[in-house]
Amino acid sequence: TLGNYLSTVVAFLRRVNGEHDLRRVVHGIKVGIALVLASIVAFITPKYKIFETDAVWAVMTVVVMFEFYAGATLSKGLNRAAGTLSGGMLGCMSAVLAKLIDSKVGQDIGVGTAVFIFGATATYVRSIPCIKRKYDYGGMIFILSFSLVAVSGAQFESSKDILKTATERLGTVMIGFAATIFTSLFIFPIWAGDELHVSIASKFEHLACSMEGLLDTYFDAVADKESKGDGSCKSCRPVLNSKAKDESLANFAKWEPWHRRFGLFYPWDKYLKVGELLRELAATIVSLDVCVQSSRQPAGDLRQSIKEPCELVASSLARTLRELGESLMNMRRCQSDALVLQKLRSSWLVLRLYMSPTKLENACKSGEDLAIS
Amino acid sequence: TLGNYLSTVVAFLRRVNGEHDLRRVVHGIKVGIALVLASIVAFITPKYKIFETDAVWAVMTVVVMFEFYAGATLSKGLNRAAGTLSGGMLGCMSAVLAKLIDSKVGQDIGVGTAVFIFGATATYVRSIPCIKRKYDYGGMIFILSFSLVAVSGAQFESSKDILKTATERLGTVMIGFAATIFTSLFIFPIWAGDELHVSIASKFEHLACSMEGLLDTYFDAVADKESKGDGSCKSCRPVLNSKAKDESLANFAKWEPWHRRFGLFYPWDKYLKVGELLRELAATIVSLDVCVQSSRQPAGDLRQSIKEPCELVASSLARTLRELGESLMNMRRCQSDALVLQKLRSSWLVLRLYMSPTKLENACKSGEDLAIS
Repeated sequence: TLGNYLSTVVAFLRRVNGEHDLRRVVHGIKVGIALVLASIVAFITPKYKIFETDAVWAVMTVVVMFEFYAGATLSKGLNRAAGTLSGGMLGCMSAVLAKLIDSKVGQDIGVGTAVFIFGATATYVRSIPCIKRKYDYGGMIFILSFSLVAVSGAQFESSKDILKTATERLGTVMIGFAATIFTSLFIFPIWAGDELHVSIASKFEHLACSMEGLLDTYFDAVADKESKGDGSCKSCRPVLNSKAKDESLANFAKWEPWHRRFGLFYPWDKYLKVGELLRELAATIVSLDVCVQSSRQPAGDLRQSIKEPCELVASSLARTLRELGESLMNMRRCQSDALVLQKLRSSWLVLRLYMSPTKLENACKSGEDLAIS
Repeated sequence: TLGNYLSTVVAFLRRVNGEHDLRRVVHGIKVGIALVLASIVAFITPKYKIFETDAVWAVMTVVVMFEFYAGATLSKGLNRAAGTLSGGMLGCMSAVLAKLIDSKVGQDIGVGTAVFIFGATATYVRSIPCIKRKYDYGGMIFILSFSLVAVSGAQFESSKDILKTATERLGTVMIGFAATIFTSLFIFPIWAGDELHVSIASKFEHLACSMEGLLDTYFDAVADKESKGDGSCKSCRPVLNSKAKDESLANFAKWEPWHRRFGLFYPWDKYLKVGELLRELAATIVSLDVCVQSSRQPAGDLRQSIKEPCELVASSLARTLRELGESLMNMRRCQSDALVLQKLRSSWLVLRLYMSPTKLENACKSGEDLAIS
């Protein structure tokens, strides 16, 4: 029964885990390594009196900064560095300025006012859409550093202490930063660029599959009317909803340094444009699916009469999509495009002869989408 | 010239700002207030010796926890609370256990191993898709608290000090938590539920507009062939790409307590289902738009002959969509659905008489979509 129990647990874990991805395991181990690196610093420094402040800030930096993709880590790290530096300096300034006031209550009120003004303003700026998209995290860190430094600075005796603590804390943060960047970029890096490349290229395959699935459903549906036409669009729907993910991947990929086949100024935006066109095609397939499921479709005889040319168009469309996807994946020019386009046009003409009012539009629409692509 | 200069600045700010949203200003001021509340605690407590540790943790909690929507703040806060408590307790335990080892080096190695194991495991668990969706932030805070407490705990003299610091820090975090929740929920709260409600209801209007725009473009395009048909789909495309935003809003809305017309167990998932159907309709409109822009559309005469029934169908479709949207917005039952559906069906029959091979599919597809809705 123990074996039984174990296999249940394993099955449960496998189900929860989704598609197994070795990269996630690697990611976990990498975070562990970076944490240990930062902790070693925290353990060693008190002994040699390099820093008097807590070296735990190094550990904190690692946890907060480490992201799955190398580009995300870099973008977060640079945002964090900019936010910490600007916020810390402004915080030091207001703490030092507040020290000029004689009474303790006056100092507190001064610092409180500064925190309110900077906190409210920075929060507003952070929420402006075009800034939020790229610098949201940096804005948060700015507010965090500013208020932490200003508030804790107000509790020190002299201005000198404030500056000393600030520089030391900055030093520990830099150590955490270095540990994170090293582990993220040099130990089995996980590139957002790779992911975007593969995901865009595989979308072609998904669309080709769902197009073929749609056709099969349509012509097999004659046999059993109540077949579930949903299956053909299963691989199509994720494509339709991939905009947000693609955009964030492209955003991260832009931060990534030169790696593998991708140069430093690789045109990641073009992937987004291709993705947009693929989403348009996916929209067409989804609405074709809706059409095909309708009860107003022609009966079996008429369907069979247009089966051959439809399949011709669909198969050459699917082949074209696959070829395009493969050539994108391997980053070489697709050679046969002019050839295939011509073949498609001729089979479209054949289909036109069958000119049946209800079905034709479907096929001709598919033809148009290729023209768009 | 100063006035000139100022107006340029104002125009620039207005452009950057996107659509002006008073809620963002309110949000900024609220964050400022919460920060001041937390700072006051940080200023007052050292005087009365309530806490010996920095009260800056209260400030930090406010900055990290405060989100735009009340539901997002609550969800982040509860994630943070759970992560801090579990991570802190485990961290204390490992620090206390490590103290049992005699040599300092042995203690450090023990803590380092614990940090590696828990850090790597928690990072892996955090990256499992279904956990990432809801508890990503809690996982990060767990790792953060665990490593901070374990590493800094290892530097204390005795186990008693470790526990004392941990409870005090927890106290200051709770103060920040309270300040954030108070400001977020009781001063002009910004509900994610409201936003989701309005956004879903207004999608009906957007789709109705773009459907009418599409029709206008189609029949006006006879006059000037090169009219840009892109305009009609401008309000349709955001609907198509709204899945991610809707889902995150629904996620936040579920955390929100009873407010206005929304009860505690309000069926937010149904909004997502309606949104899914609307996205399907948007997909159809986008692909119709592609169709209409094609050069293979029939000439002006044929178009004009089907203009009247097409407009009849489109206008009643648009009216139905608007009515559905309004009834959703006002949360009352849409009365005329049976009536409108019948009218639609009859005008569809009229259209059928005009049975022209190329154009008809469009209209009949629109009819089907209504049936789906």
